[in-house]
Amino acid sequence: MVFGNMGNTSATGVGFTRDASTGENIFNGEYLINAQGEDVVAGIRTPQQITLIGSKRWAESQGVPEDVRKNQFPSLEESLPETYQELKNVQEKLEQHFKDMQDIEFTIQNGKLWLLQCRSGKRTGAAMVQIACDLLREGKIDEKTALKRIEPNKLDELLHPIFTPEALKTAKFVAKGLPASPGAASGQIVFFADEAKKFAQSILVRIETSPEDLEGMNIARGILTARGGMTSHAAVVARGMGKCCVCGAGSLNINYKQRTLEVNGKVYAEGDWISLNGSTGDVFEGKLQTQEAQLSGDFGLIMDWAEKYTRMYVRTNADTPKDAQIARKFGAKGIGLTRTEHMFFEGERIKAMREMILASDLTGRQTALAKLLPFQRSDFEGIFEAMNGYGVTIRLLDPPLHEFVPHETAQQQELAQDMGLTLDQVKQKVHELAEFNPMLGHRGCRLGITYPEITEMQTRAIIEAALNIKAKGMDVKPEIMVPLVGNVNELEHQLKVVKKTAETVFKERNDTIHYLVGTMIEVPRACLVADQIGQIAEFFSFGTNDLTQMTLGFSRDDAGKFLPYYINNGILKVDPFQVLDRQGVGKMVELAVKNGKSTNPHLKVGICGEHGGEPSSVEFFHIVGLDYVSCSPFRVPIARVAAAIANLTHP
Amino acid sequence: MVFGNMGNTSATGVGFTRDASTGENIFNGEYLINAQGEDVVAGIRTPQQITLIGSKRWAESQGVPEDVRKNQFPSLEESLPETYQELKNVQEKLEQHFKDMQDIEFTIQNGKLWLLQCRSGKRTGAAMVQIACDLLREGKIDEKTALKRIEPNKLDELLHPIFTPEALKTAKFVAKGLPASPGAASGQIVFFADEAKKFAQSILVRIETSPEDLEGMNIARGILTARGGMTSHAAVVARGMGKCCVCGAGSLNINYKQRTLEVNGKVYAEGDWISLNGSTGDVFEGKLQTQEAQLSGDFGLIMDWAEKYTRMYVRTNADTPKDAQIARKFGAKGIGLTRTEHMFFEGERIKAMREMILASDLTGRQTALAKLLPFQRSDFEGIFEAMNGYGVTIRLLDPPLHEFVPHETAQQQELAQDMGLTLDQVKQKVHELAEFNPMLGHRGCRLGITYPEITEMQTRAIIEAALNIKAKGMDVKPEIMVPLVGNVNELEHQLKVVKKTAETVFKERNDTIHYLVGTMIEVPRACLVADQIGQIAEFFSFGTNDLTQMTLGFSRDDAGKFLPYYINNGILKVDPFQVLDRQGVGKMVELAVKNGKSTNPHLKVGICGEHGGEPSSVEFFHIVGLDYVSCSPFRVPIARVAAAIANLTHP
Repeated sequence: MVFGNMGNTSATGVGFTRDASTGENIFNGEYLINAQGEDVVAGIRTPQQITLIGSKRWAESQGVPEDVRKNQFPSLEESLPETYQELKNVQEKLEQHFKDMQDIEFTIQNGKLWLLQCRSGKRTGAAMVQIACDLLREGKIDEKTALKRIEPNKLDELLHPIFTPEALKTAKFVAKGLPASPGAASGQIVFFADEAKKFAQSILVRIETSPEDLEGMNIARGILTARGGMTSHAAVVARGMGKCCVCGAGSLNINYKQRTLEVNGKVYAEGDWISLNGSTGDVFEGKLQTQEAQLSGDFGLIMDWAEKYTRMYVRTNADTPKDAQIARKFGAKGIGLTRTEHMFFEGERIKAMREMILASDLTGRQTALAKLLPFQRSDFEGIFEAMNGYGVTIRLLDPPLHEFVPHETAQQQELAQDMGLTLDQVKQKVHELAEFNPMLGHRGCRLGITYPEITEMQTRAIIEAALNIKAKGMDVKPEIMVPLVGNVNELEHQLKVVKKTAETVFKERNDTIHYLVGTMIEVPRACLVADQIGQIAEFFSFGTNDLTQMTLGFSRDDAGKFLPYYINNGILKVDPFQVLDRQGVGKMVELAVKNGKSTNPHLKVGICGEHGGEPSSVEFFHIVGLDYVSCSPFRVPIARVAAAIANLTHP
Repeated sequence: MVFGNMGNTSATGVGFTRDASTGENIFNGEYLINAQGEDVVAGIRTPQQITLIGSKRWAESQGVPEDVRKNQFPSLEESLPETYQELKNVQEKLEQHFKDMQDIEFTIQNGKLWLLQCRSGKRTGAAMVQIACDLLREGKIDEKTALKRIEPNKLDELLHPIFTPEALKTAKFVAKGLPASPGAASGQIVFFADEAKKFAQSILVRIETSPEDLEGMNIARGILTARGGMTSHAAVVARGMGKCCVCGAGSLNINYKQRTLEVNGKVYAEGDWISLNGSTGDVFEGKLQTQEAQLSGDFGLIMDWAEKYTRMYVRTNADTPKDAQIARKFGAKGIGLTRTEHMFFEGERIKAMREMILASDLTGRQTALAKLLPFQRSDFEGIFEAMNGYGVTIRLLDPPLHEFVPHETAQQQELAQDMGLTLDQVKQKVHELAEFNPMLGHRGCRLGITYPEITEMQTRAIIEAALNIKAKGMDVKPEIMVPLVGNVNELEHQLKVVKKTAETVFKERNDTIHYLVGTMIEVPRACLVADQIGQIAEFFSFGTNDLTQMTLGFSRDDAGKFLPYYINNGILKVDPFQVLDRQGVGKMVELAVKNGKSTNPHLKVGICGEHGGEPSSVEFFHIVGLDYVSCSPFRVPIARVAAAIANLTHP
């Protein structure tokens, strides 16, 4: 044992070979004269800077005059210059040896320098990028090593606005939720999606969100919910939009009637300012200053390496041309999932959709579907245009119809009037559509099978849109995805409807286009019979959200009741909706890939669940041989780097 | 081609070498002089009996005087005696050759007999048993062949009351539902379970039933529901009780407020008589006469063969000593599933249960659980006593707590008063317990893990009950089953709680008893990691109902919306909740058995889902090497025969 508290030629401290916050190549750190490590940690004395330049920068930032600094807070470089020089030489040697930024603990006992430990230092996302690129430029590491130095998740910090460190210092903490979608946002509280416009900057505060809230979610600066996990509706949609979101903040008591939010006795009303950190899950009071995301040239460099070393490519989950463009900018090569139902909630669309649902017979449904056709077609045109040159996977209608009908009497009354029905008839229909477990109910291809006219309309919209964009001279590659298939007969049924409709459109237009038909693999049974399904599917896309729900028997909307307990008590290491459960869900994926390729070696295989943007999951998908992962636009760079590192680690 | 319509020495007919209805060893059948096959089918002319004795019996039953019979409806034996004799010889020869009751089509052309076809004849359950036993006694077939002649499902006809043929002739058909639980029942309509006592013979008519209705279901003669499939609550409970039930009769419009049942414009009120055939799904108007089930000695003979030739044994799913005794009489060797929650709905129990759920802290829950302990203990004592000598598998609490709280304001008010809470507090708690997909929610071992005090109380009740019954000199073999395990850590957690509690009770009582701890395999993930689970489980019991729900992604309560369409349109051949889906769920079962036995060769493996009493599924369970199947009491004989036949077919 050595002692740093043996007098004024003794000291203790921590040094970094580069700046852990910015990545700047400058030796830095803190020390205390006549002290032990505990004293630095305890925070009783103000630690001093090791280098003179560091000390001067510190004094400037703290408003400490130079004479005070020099006398009361001198740098080690000034107070023990010889030992400082020795330490400086040692840190250079250590970095040269380990070829990475080092975090070095040292003690000086009566002028003699002792090193206690050194290790690769923790760093911010910005520093991580800077240091990796600098080390490469300095010739200390090669490109592959530089790439492996990137923790993909940390790139997130570079892609979203953050609160300024100054703002955070004085911020008043209100509550903690799940870091559902990264970024920082301040705004005035609104409790209803259709009131998001009420303030120029609003934060939508809900117990939970539903597809009806989509427009308001888009307008709000950020979203805060009291219920729901990392794959709840709010979380998924917010990530897709690249919008800051904190989910499942259980301590919030939201009263829609009184338009109040109560936390630990304190009440916030509509219009009050609130701030969300979607990267940490923190909720703060008031308006906090944010700083915008800035992508450096080094970020582009890393993307180039990702491109060079990856085997898998990355697509995006996008429902709008805007999302598609953002993702494309980040290097997405196609769309892995367009959810058509997200297009059904605006204005006239939802009316036609509801008319379709409430129709009493085929003719009624066809009439309503005919109204939806032009909306769908023009939506698809926008997306095809945005993804010119790349494949676009469009999923046929998936959610249970109950999600589209109004549940409040006033809206039901309105719908009844529009449709010439009585309120009771509408209520009856809504009641009939209710399900005990909608997740396992009448949804996915079960809708397209019992109502083939829906699949017909959607296929027509896709093929017509594709031909229209092709006519503009663009390269359109539509991929029609049948959801929730568990039995090859289901896909066969839908395949027939799709092919027949496409042929009809081709004849009408006297033109054709190449398209693929595949299926989403999200029901456990589909993995077991993937050899049969592979015989008629042109691609598989794993829906790992639902596959996780069914394989584990966890409803993602309800798991909040036990999942936190499971994680806190070591029953689960991580949330399986965030990080793919390799032993369970992963085994199913592996089985499906093996089975599917056994009968169809050319089967294209990807994944479009939320796991597509999570590095450990991406690594697994690389290992089992998937062709691509698809994720929300702002996760694309992360997935790209993760895929490339996975390929370097598991060649 | 030959012609039976060439004059009075020509004829056509169908003969049976034995009676297809009773099994009596008597040649019989019908014919028409001067006719072709179509004439017999068309029903314009009354067919005549082939034999004299048959003709006389017919005349007696129809009240036709002997002279009329002889002149207008003579037997073939009388009208064409030589040809008759030839036919009689031929039928003997054919049965001797095929060694089974034959259904023979013949035509007589100008006195010459031509045989058109012959095949093994269809028969009733009673005839099936009689004929198989007679053929054996006549030395025509051996025991194994006789056993294979039994269609296990047809034994059902022998185990339940049926409507008399006379009553059925004049019965007025009302509606058709699913044949959810066999038997015949007439009674007066009641719409609420707690009013089942209102009439001496009542039929409970509900949109659907819930655990709260249990007592009333027990009192009613039969149960009729408008919603729900073969594994809905009503169906499962009714089969367990051996009570007649017709489920999911979609054409019924039930109005609880007005206490009416409307079908196709006709309205039935409370107190009106109605009759159900649970074996066919038919609902009739009025009161129909029934005849009781009568088990012949031959039935016992078949059970003996089943015993002799089976590899698997059969247990029963039973929640009460009465059920256990019935099943034991049918040859059940132990209980494969006791659902403890079914014991929670009577009187004081449900109050204590609700007190436990609404308690705000551990102490509150423990106080309420202490009240439940004596109830549970005495229930378990009854069951242990009834199954003296055999293993009894008791499943720890499984359903989500939401099922136990009252959902109507009046009851909530009462509960609030009982517990000294406000109505709002009770409503809030009930609201908090609601789940989007309760089937995948906070239930099964997730309850026992987040509230270990529940598992403690249940374990104490089981072990104390076992010691009490052991003290009476009986042989008690408790098996504690942890439900819904998907991760070995879950089982490990519960195992610790169980073992610690058992050790405590052993010390208190200064006595011990051998018990097993195992798990229900019902989550797909459990099958994938069964090697891990097998290392600490002493038995696996497949919960194929839930395993089917999750593997296929079919909610059994909601599948009624698409399953009938799937079956009618050939997407599925059968209802996977009735007949095990071998390619999907079966593969999971196979995987779990293989994985489990790979780490624990002594693992006991059984199944306690509804499939345990379905012959094709039982065959599959035999093939994959299960040790036992467990089913509702009235399915035990069926499962026993199915298991034995499976062993003969797949030795």
